[in-house]
Amino acid sequence: MTSQPVPPRETSGGHPTSSAAAAGTRLDPWLSSYADRTHGMRSSEIRALFAVANRPEVVSLAGGMPFLDGLPMDVIGDLAQRVVATRGLQALQYGSGQGDETLREQILDVMRLEGIDAHPDDVVVTTGSQQALDLVTRIFVDPGDVVVAEAPSYVGALGVFRAYQADVVHTPIDADGLVPEALEATLTELAAAGRRVKLLYTVPNFHNPAGVSLAVARRSQVLEIAQRHGVLVVEDNPYGLLGFDVEPRPAIRSLDDAGVIYLGSFSKTIAPGYRVGWVVAPHAVREKLVLASESAILCPSNASQLAISTYLSTCDWRGQIKAYREQYRERRDAMVAALAEHLPEASWNVPDGGFYTWVRLPEGLDAKDMLPRAVTARVAYVPGTAFYFDGSGADHMRLSFCYPTPERIREGVRRLAGVVAGERELVELFGTGAGSRPSTVQAPGPDLA
Amino acid sequence: MTSQPVPPRETSGGHPTSSAAAAGTRLDPWLSSYADRTHGMRSSEIRALFAVANRPEVVSLAGGMPFLDGLPMDVIGDLAQRVVATRGLQALQYGSGQGDETLREQILDVMRLEGIDAHPDDVVVTTGSQQALDLVTRIFVDPGDVVVAEAPSYVGALGVFRAYQADVVHTPIDADGLVPEALEATLTELAAAGRRVKLLYTVPNFHNPAGVSLAVARRSQVLEIAQRHGVLVVEDNPYGLLGFDVEPRPAIRSLDDAGVIYLGSFSKTIAPGYRVGWVVAPHAVREKLVLASESAILCPSNASQLAISTYLSTCDWRGQIKAYREQYRERRDAMVAALAEHLPEASWNVPDGGFYTWVRLPEGLDAKDMLPRAVTARVAYVPGTAFYFDGSGADHMRLSFCYPTPERIREGVRRLAGVVAGERELVELFGTGAGSRPSTVQAPGPDLA
Repeated sequence: MTSQPVPPRETSGGHPTSSAAAAGTRLDPWLSSYADRTHGMRSSEIRALFAVANRPEVVSLAGGMPFLDGLPMDVIGDLAQRVVATRGLQALQYGSGQGDETLREQILDVMRLEGIDAHPDDVVVTTGSQQALDLVTRIFVDPGDVVVAEAPSYVGALGVFRAYQADVVHTPIDADGLVPEALEATLTELAAAGRRVKLLYTVPNFHNPAGVSLAVARRSQVLEIAQRHGVLVVEDNPYGLLGFDVEPRPAIRSLDDAGVIYLGSFSKTIAPGYRVGWVVAPHAVREKLVLASESAILCPSNASQLAISTYLSTCDWRGQIKAYREQYRERRDAMVAALAEHLPEASWNVPDGGFYTWVRLPEGLDAKDMLPRAVTARVAYVPGTAFYFDGSGADHMRLSFCYPTPERIREGVRRLAGVVAGERELVELFGTGAGSRPSTVQAPGPDLA
Repeated sequence: MTSQPVPPRETSGGHPTSSAAAAGTRLDPWLSSYADRTHGMRSSEIRALFAVANRPEVVSLAGGMPFLDGLPMDVIGDLAQRVVATRGLQALQYGSGQGDETLREQILDVMRLEGIDAHPDDVVVTTGSQQALDLVTRIFVDPGDVVVAEAPSYVGALGVFRAYQADVVHTPIDADGLVPEALEATLTELAAAGRRVKLLYTVPNFHNPAGVSLAVARRSQVLEIAQRHGVLVVEDNPYGLLGFDVEPRPAIRSLDDAGVIYLGSFSKTIAPGYRVGWVVAPHAVREKLVLASESAILCPSNASQLAISTYLSTCDWRGQIKAYREQYRERRDAMVAALAEHLPEASWNVPDGGFYTWVRLPEGLDAKDMLPRAVTARVAYVPGTAFYFDGSGADHMRLSFCYPTPERIREGVRRLAGVVAGERELVELFGTGAGSRPSTVQAPGPDLA
């Protein structure tokens, strides 16, 4: 690693505090002091738009926030009270770096629904599964190492890989997720080029953003290919229990315990506000993850862990997940019906679980160029460019159906159809859309979780 | 950065699962995959001893856990209930990456007690101040960069610097903290050697482990020296409000807002179980910290932030801090009196705040060698070696008076005196103590917070 100062790139002009930020950057007395890795950390140009998109008059089909209105807040409030009143000396104290042992045992029950057989000692509790991904990347990725990921991939994962100066190489997916032959070709090509591939990052269930799931028959193939190439599989599974018409599929981790690191989260099955996720890893890896986590945060919050643990032991968490599934299915139905009605010239998949629809725009339209116009028309989405390491994907957009009500979803798609129609007219007249294309989106922000 | 695989050092033999860990290391199929930075992440050999030290029959003078029995658990339980029952849709949802705005305003009130005048936009809420330190290091330190730190320094900070492959150069302290002339000499020497010094890391109040505070008159000198050398000051201040007989001293940050990054925490003034800390930084730095935090954890826990915020707005937090001060003063008194009675052959400082006494052993004794014998005698401490980047400091030990009752402190020091007496006999007979010196302690674990 060179210790030569490299001028960092400008922060983006689209940031909410853009003029102040730009001035701050120019006047920043520490400009030459930043680490090289900060060059990969940059604000997203679409943030300013999202600041606007959070206004109540805008229908946001952009965010990944779960819809929490159905949670029994009185019950959860009471258990939060009980945790502190009866176990305050534990709940409010430092805890284990690896996480609360009872919670780790309960996590095994949750994972058993996807066929995972593990030991509490294999589990590390983290501050959301985002931290799990950060720690995994921290212990495996040197600058210049390659992470292979689906095309497209979760924007927050791309941000982590970039923060650790990895190169992400995308590998194709189809309606059944990762394509084994294409993965084989990608890894063979990288090996031939002498690249050091560390991780295969995959969201096998109800993919973010593509909405597809890895076919069960392909799971062992993907695992075998990765192992043959000496590449560790990182299975990121926040949505696996949120299938609408399907039973949970067996996790890749259920097929092998040495070659897979599994990331789990309560953010979508209970609630994200506690920031409780976890990682399951082979023993030697798990040890390093605990050390890395202690260095990063000392220990996860006992207050949060005990609240989640008490919820799991005293509430009908399976029933709550069932309620979530029904709620999100209704919204998926609303989304798909609205797309068919208002945007027949686009194409999309019909996800059988999760939060997202992946929409391909009519020929010639650019989702990123079009976004300012969409926000002006009071509808927001995430352009496909956010989900590609190289900023490609402008012909796609991610539409979330998790948070808005079915009525709002219909209204949002109706507004979007108006924007698309206007944009198509422009393209037909001038051969290009209204927007101008800024550079790649990288830092997701919690809005895009 | 080379991407050549480098064999990682063995995990320590002293780890609780030592034989399994050693076997795991030998058989670890991912051994050649780890990032270079993992070579700086290693388990502490004293962990096995601390596993034993946590048994109730052992008096632990090792930990940094606050004594929480005086907290009004019923009141905090009720507010935890209220937060979820009345603001559940916010408390249980994703939040801002920078942290809750109301809480950031309240943090300004807390910091005003130390003369800090800031804007809510300067504050980033973090998962404990440990995460703040991790993020600061992440955005500033390239491998091989130098961090200048007090001799000795907080073990958890040394672990972070090592995890980012920094070199730590210690600079001397005396009873008034950092010695300006020595700091000047250290920085001049490093500049002459062509080293790239990024940060001056300091705990100015009730230092961990040394117990001393930076004299008020020296604060502007230290700041001036750092600025002249182009070095950013990282002021880590978890204990500043916990003075026994003194009013809070003005923070270094109160003297300058461009050259200082300030780290704060509620772990010692309220409770650590929520994991809420913060960082105050110049504007451009703050922007990068938010991006880094979003990449690391998406956002801090809303549930924790709202609990802390409600505590601050509805409870007598100043009164609670006063109660903590009195509680810890009584324990400091017990510690110092017991040392005078039982260990007159050692020397120590009398801290006027915080959690720690820094004890110099009689000539010829080695605190690290002696530790197994101490634990056998049912008393634990942290050997001075933990607080030096190069593992020196074996002639010192850190004794915490924060957690055990005064009676237990007296009993602990009595036991320690017995161990010291036995060790001195051995030294006189054989010229060396009973233990054998293992290598450096690095990973702190929450025990040593």
